[in-house]
Amino acid sequence: MIKQRGILYVLSGPSGVGKGTVRKALFERDTHLQYSISMTSRSPREGEIDGGDYFFKKREDFEQLIKDNKLLEWAEYVGNYYGTPIDYVEQTLDEGQDVFLEIEVQGAMQVKKVFPEAVFIFLIPPSLEELKNRILGRGTETEDLVNNRLSAAKVEIEMMNAYDYVVVNEKVEHAVERVEAIVHAEHFRRTRVEKQYRKLLEVE
Amino acid sequence: MIKQRGILYVLSGPSGVGKGTVRKALFERDTHLQYSISMTSRSPREGEIDGGDYFFKKREDFEQLIKDNKLLEWAEYVGNYYGTPIDYVEQTLDEGQDVFLEIEVQGAMQVKKVFPEAVFIFLIPPSLEELKNRILGRGTETEDLVNNRLSAAKVEIEMMNAYDYVVVNEKVEHAVERVEAIVHAEHFRRTRVEKQYRKLLEVE
Repeated sequence: MIKQRGILYVLSGPSGVGKGTVRKALFERDTHLQYSISMTSRSPREGEIDGGDYFFKKREDFEQLIKDNKLLEWAEYVGNYYGTPIDYVEQTLDEGQDVFLEIEVQGAMQVKKVFPEAVFIFLIPPSLEELKNRILGRGTETEDLVNNRLSAAKVEIEMMNAYDYVVVNEKVEHAVERVEAIVHAEHFRRTRVEKQYRKLLEVE
Repeated sequence: MIKQRGILYVLSGPSGVGKGTVRKALFERDTHLQYSISMTSRSPREGEIDGGDYFFKKREDFEQLIKDNKLLEWAEYVGNYYGTPIDYVEQTLDEGQDVFLEIEVQGAMQVKKVFPEAVFIFLIPPSLEELKNRILGRGTETEDLVNNRLSAAKVEIEMMNAYDYVVVNEKVEHAVERVEAIVHAEHFRRTRVEKQYRKLLEVE
């Protein structure tokens, strides 16, 4: 049996759609996936563990990693860098383990350039109305901010055509079941397994 | 909500691999799929129902259907025609129902010409040794015939590259689970749902 490389799954979608909730529910059910820990230049909060919650790096070290192409994707939020270290992803895949990323749409497009063979899953709300309700539901944002986020989401939805799958997040448990079926089915895609199986069925 | 066309699934694989067993086990578990009934020019056996076991046709009527391109795929075995009527498949798909075909590899290649968007699943044995054992296990064939069938199977395995998925039939229950995951996941392929979802998320 030839050892098969792991599969990289990328869950993304417009801001407010519930990516984090779906990812957490998925990891409660599925233990074979490896979750890629993000790297950040912000300071650890109380109780946060380096290599557990995040990989914590100094700002200048993070910038050096960007320059050295050591990040699969990265962005700056509120003055701090956040990103996905490429070494962990590469190493885990090489070990034959599947890696799961839950990231913003801009980051997903960066991943696609490096791993075009990854499985890209786009999570969408059942309607724009519902997305607005979800953003309002957080109760932490002004009306202007809510409208800004909705406009941004509309632009992000335009990026759907770069994805392999589209899953509606109407009920979390259904969305998780759908993502699980996709994760399972992709192991049998001919383009991934053909070489291995041809070897398996070679004439002795 | 825009009504979506059904998906056509085609399960195929080398002779002796256990396609029929997997298909029967799948239909015991999954009731949403419609099984396409074959058409034949042979006479009904006792108890066989027209439109149940087969659609029974006179030989000359079958030949006319071939000429009129009314068969999605067809072949002649032991002097009788067997085939899949295209009207049933088209009509069921138009009703938004998924259709499942379990056919020989030659037939699958004919289906691919008409329905390139169908989902093609290739069932393979865990090894050629095991395939030989399965053919021998039927106990109905001479050594020469077994070797002929094995040679044919090797040629058929070469056709793997025309398929979307490859599933190893080591244990039937695992093969069925894999086919089920594929059937489920294909409903969320972006190319199938994008148009519908873009409409759903249009600005009111």
